[in-house]
Amino acid sequence: MQSLQEKASEWSGVNPNDAFAIDETNLYQKLGLQTFINLSTNFYNRVYDDEEEWFRSIFANSKKEDAIQNQYEFFVQRMGGPPLYSQRRGHPALIARHRPFPVTRQAAERWLHHMQQALESSTDIDSDSKTKMLNFFRHTAFFLVAGDELKNQKQSIACKHAASKPAAV
Amino acid sequence: MQSLQEKASEWSGVNPNDAFAIDETNLYQKLGLQTFINLSTNFYNRVYDDEEEWFRSIFANSKKEDAIQNQYEFFVQRMGGPPLYSQRRGHPALIARHRPFPVTRQAAERWLHHMQQALESSTDIDSDSKTKMLNFFRHTAFFLVAGDELKNQKQSIACKHAASKPAAV
Repeated sequence: MQSLQEKASEWSGVNPNDAFAIDETNLYQKLGLQTFINLSTNFYNRVYDDEEEWFRSIFANSKKEDAIQNQYEFFVQRMGGPPLYSQRRGHPALIARHRPFPVTRQAAERWLHHMQQALESSTDIDSDSKTKMLNFFRHTAFFLVAGDELKNQKQSIACKHAASKPAAV
Repeated sequence: MQSLQEKASEWSGVNPNDAFAIDETNLYQKLGLQTFINLSTNFYNRVYDDEEEWFRSIFANSKKEDAIQNQYEFFVQRMGGPPLYSQRRGHPALIARHRPFPVTRQAAERWLHHMQQALESSTDIDSDSKTKMLNFFRHTAFFLVAGDELKNQKQSIACKHAASKPAAV
């Protein structure tokens, strides 16, 4: 059985070394907090204004300012800064926290489309950092698609079991 | 509704500031790779020899050497060292990766019992680092108990939905 990592690499086209090249330099020290706040604000402005209703609706139950804070605090923590996210919300637990959302391949590509646009429009981020971040985001997006499929597997097993009970009684 | 972090804090008795005090110093630089390998080896020797069969059986389908490597690579990565875990396996995704296991409060306490013994028997770790690590482990163990309950909630909703379908047909 393919691991989460293998699926993420195959589906994203980004191998783990490229995905985690974000750890070669401390991007938080290089870019600073405000750059991450700006990036997440730019990204979520695009998401909440998306003309594609199916994608926009995924975020309908979340306040934009919360989505922005959750995202930049995670990025800061993961890219060498203080553990802002964990101090406030605990472990990132990326797959579990995405359980409520349908993280399909199509949704991953749409997320990446907006993030690529946000990165391209950012004047605070050098091109090497942009490449590293985009590889990390692309691999992570498809890691979450793989995580989403796990969820479906588990549910169907649980429901088979539940369905078999009444028949046995 | 209580968040994962709030549940972890309440159930473990460890507040987030104490849990994430591991980030105040770079424990990997302070302790070194071999200390983490020794700790995880010591811990899993205890787990795989546990006289409590219900706890030992949770690990029955995992090879001890894999369990040791997964654990110390995660600890190294989380405590300031190179991202060994993510390069090999992807994001920690702690809750999702514990889905196959029954992470009850009782299991969390048993895990912590063995980890406390392993830490106490370690001569490579100073007492301040031991305190920080134990607070982190205790908070994390109950964070996973909270994550385990999420899994059950989701299943019951999914199964209710599945069960209602045949009735409607």
